Amino acid sequence: MTFSLYETLSVSLDEDGVATLRLDRPAQLNAFDLTMARELERFFLTDARSDDVRAVVVTGAGRAFCAGMDLSRAGNVFGLDEALAPTPEEFRAHYDEPPYHDGLRDTGGRVTLAIHALPKPVIAAINGAAVGIGATMTLAMDIRMASTEARIGFVFGRIGITPEAASSWFLPRIVGLQQALEWIYSADILTAEAARAGRLLRSVHAPEELLPAAQELARSFVKGRSPVALGLAKQLLYRHAGSADPLEAHLSDSLAVFWSSMGDGKEGVAAFLEKRAPSFEGRASELPRID
Amino acid sequence: MTFSLYETLSVSLDEDGVATLRLDRPAQLNAFDLTMARELERFFLTDARSDDVRAVVVTGAGRAFCAGMDLSRAGNVFGLDEALAPTPEEFRAHYDEPPYHDGLRDTGGRVTLAIHALPKPVIAAINGAAVGIGATMTLAMDIRMASTEARIGFVFGRIGITPEAASSWFLPRIVGLQQALEWIYSADILTAEAARAGRLLRSVHAPEELLPAAQELARSFVKGRSPVALGLAKQLLYRHAGSADPLEAHLSDSLAVFWSSMGDGKEGVAAFLEKRAPSFEGRASELPRID
Amino acid sequence: MTFSLYETLSVSLDEDGVATLRLDRPAQLNAFDLTMARELERFFLTDARSDDVRAVVVTGAGRAFCAGMDLSRAGNVFGLDEALAPTPEEFRAHYDEPPYHDGLRDTGGRVTLAIHALPKPVIAAINGAAVGIGATMTLAMDIRMASTEARIGFVFGRIGITPEAASSWFLPRIVGLQQALEWIYSADILTAEAARAGRLLRSVHAPEELLPAAQELARSFVKGRSPVALGLAKQLLYRHAGSADPLEAHLSDSLAVFWSSMGDGKEGVAAFLEKRAPSFEGRASELPRID
Repeated sequence: MTFSLYETLSVSLDEDGVATLRLDRPAQLNAFDLTMARELERFFLTDARSDDVRAVVVTGAGRAFCAGMDLSRAGNVFGLDEALAPTPEEFRAHYDEPPYHDGLRDTGGRVTLAIHALPKPVIAAINGAAVGIGATMTLAMDIRMASTEARIGFVFGRIGITPEAASSWFLPRIVGLQQALEWIYSADILTAEAARAGRLLRSVHAPEELLPAAQELARSFVKGRSPVALGLAKQLLYRHAGSADPLEAHLSDSLAVFWSSMGDGKEGVAAFLEKRAPSFEGRASELPRID
Repeated sequence: MTFSLYETLSVSLDEDGVATLRLDRPAQLNAFDLTMARELERFFLTDARSDDVRAVVVTGAGRAFCAGMDLSRAGNVFGLDEALAPTPEEFRAHYDEPPYHDGLRDTGGRVTLAIHALPKPVIAAINGAAVGIGATMTLAMDIRMASTEARIGFVFGRIGITPEAASSWFLPRIVGLQQALEWIYSADILTAEAARAGRLLRSVHAPEELLPAAQELARSFVKGRSPVALGLAKQLLYRHAGSADPLEAHLSDSLAVFWSSMGDGKEGVAAFLEKRAPSFEGRASELPRID
Repeated sequence: MTFSLYETLSVSLDEDGVATLRLDRPAQLNAFDLTMARELERFFLTDARSDDVRAVVVTGAGRAFCAGMDLSRAGNVFGLDEALAPTPEEFRAHYDEPPYHDGLRDTGGRVTLAIHALPKPVIAAINGAAVGIGATMTLAMDIRMASTEARIGFVFGRIGITPEAASSWFLPRIVGLQQALEWIYSADILTAEAARAGRLLRSVHAPEELLPAAQELARSFVKGRSPVALGLAKQLLYRHAGSADPLEAHLSDSLAVFWSSMGDGKEGVAAFLEKRAPSFEGRASELPRID
């Protein structure tokens, strides 16, 4: 497939469908600006949705992963429209319409919601500094791996702002509430080892081994697997990590098992019984609706 | 008490009220079929509800715990009615009626919801292979202990289906979201040690020591304790692990403390002040309603 | 500032705004009675709300932290009105009115909800025995540090009552569901090391080093920081540790970033770009409404 052209990103795809997305403004340490925000949102909502893409690995070009928001912008540094003043009720009712969609919604959150909505594995390969939105964007990815050189900071408190990018939903579910509070309050820069000990990172790797290891893990998730079953599994885990009662999960997973038992599951079971590799035909772009 | 007769299960009860439930199809490695599903659901909804049963330990007969769904069934391998095609809304509105109750609801989830609803401690003693539903059924149990010989696999992805048995609600709350996603995506078979390191297992034991250790832990939970207080505590923890706000927990636990302060709590406090063992009379079959 | 006079508490404030609150009934091992309950609730709803207070460290006078509920009271030991008998629906509709507000609501929960509602860091410095409400009150605090001498027990089951103080909401989100269930079921007294290994405690300290370490950590959270950003961050993390979907977090944090980008965030960014220390003027008593 051919990807869109991006100013701030570069993308490649291997033969197993593992896309590698590079934040690619190395001279600016891949700082996040409004162009990168729009391009990341677009990548996850369009290109990454292609059935040719089975999983995504996100890394940074050069020595940083993402040095955070570019704070040099004139006017409102986050690109927000300071003339607005909605009540919470007004904003919630109309957040996806003008003027709130572009004038008030946090740009980092628009990106993480797009990552979250992709029904495919997404792995962060944190190769260097990941600060501010550079740290929080990885929380919406399924797995975080890092180089020994990585430094990770939820540093919002140092500049008088709050954590964003829906990080308050993801972080406590990854590391627990006490660790989440401490990291947000301290606003410190963490070493890779501290971030691993606190359960933010799955694993830490020598710098030159990080990206191959992340790509290999992504490959192991998708080779010989049903894109439909993978996509539904991702939806199930995130939705019910937040639902009130196991009955909710039962209702969703009953439909997921039901539809897959007539689709790729039929082939999967047959292949298992015949001791051969399955040949799945389902497409992540055509998931059955389970919720 | 006398338990029902089961084809696929065997049950015993010790003098402290600790029931040991064995999945008992050893020649089939205790594979889960529709008979076992119906019998497990019945055990947890009827026999286990007897006030003579104070806690349940679940293990497997022979060398496996449960080798997963028996995939050799003709027609829909999960026993589902392929003629159905409800929308999610239709299914949610009528899931407990025909034709959905028996034709579409995941059988594993019917079992785990029955385990979840039992207001008594349930401990999994995973003595060998626990694969597919053999793994996910343990997630609805309160504590998981395993033998060094145990092998645990959330292998659904290998046959093109999705995790079931409401596991998407339980797993992230036991091991965290990142570990849950990796295990479901990888669909690998885990050693006992890997499962313990990932926080799925409370502890790992020599094979001959596993069942006695699980029974002893169960005994320590119930001897000299109020079945009412235990049952309410289980309800509180599961319900508010999923509720939106601490106020919800406050409203439930206020009622739980209120009713127990006039029941077994009165005896418990008196016994404490008189430095004697309490003699509780409350029954788990008569819990006050707190929600 | 001058604090109220309390019978059961003593309070001091350092020059960085770190208040140290001592449970101060050392002859009774700081046992929790209805006076202490009302005073703790009052402290967190009034004195601690002063903008002079930036963070709170809670510890015990003498050798205990809090030995639990004083069980020597005549009549209903928890101070509840045994003539009441509401349905759950009736109680939920009127819990904050007479006769339920003072006659049925759990007093421990009234305290923990007041702690929870304070938009400032709260750190428990557990210097000795913390039993029953002495243990559960710390769960609503953001960070738990302990002395090697600390002993912590969720001992409710031993006297026939249930965990309270909204602990069923907090505990699983701090230590995970399996550990929470085991501690509540076992009702054992934990050593500091066991509580740390189970992730209840952030860290364990030599007795004489505990309080200075807790105060130093509190100081590191607030010095040079915006009280508004800190308060909103605390609200975001607790609220979305319990919300259903990342979109909810996005809607809240968009408003939090928006309002702080026009308040202390403007100064924070300017100071960062000018490589100087920020001078924040926002007040925790005037947080913008984000929900």
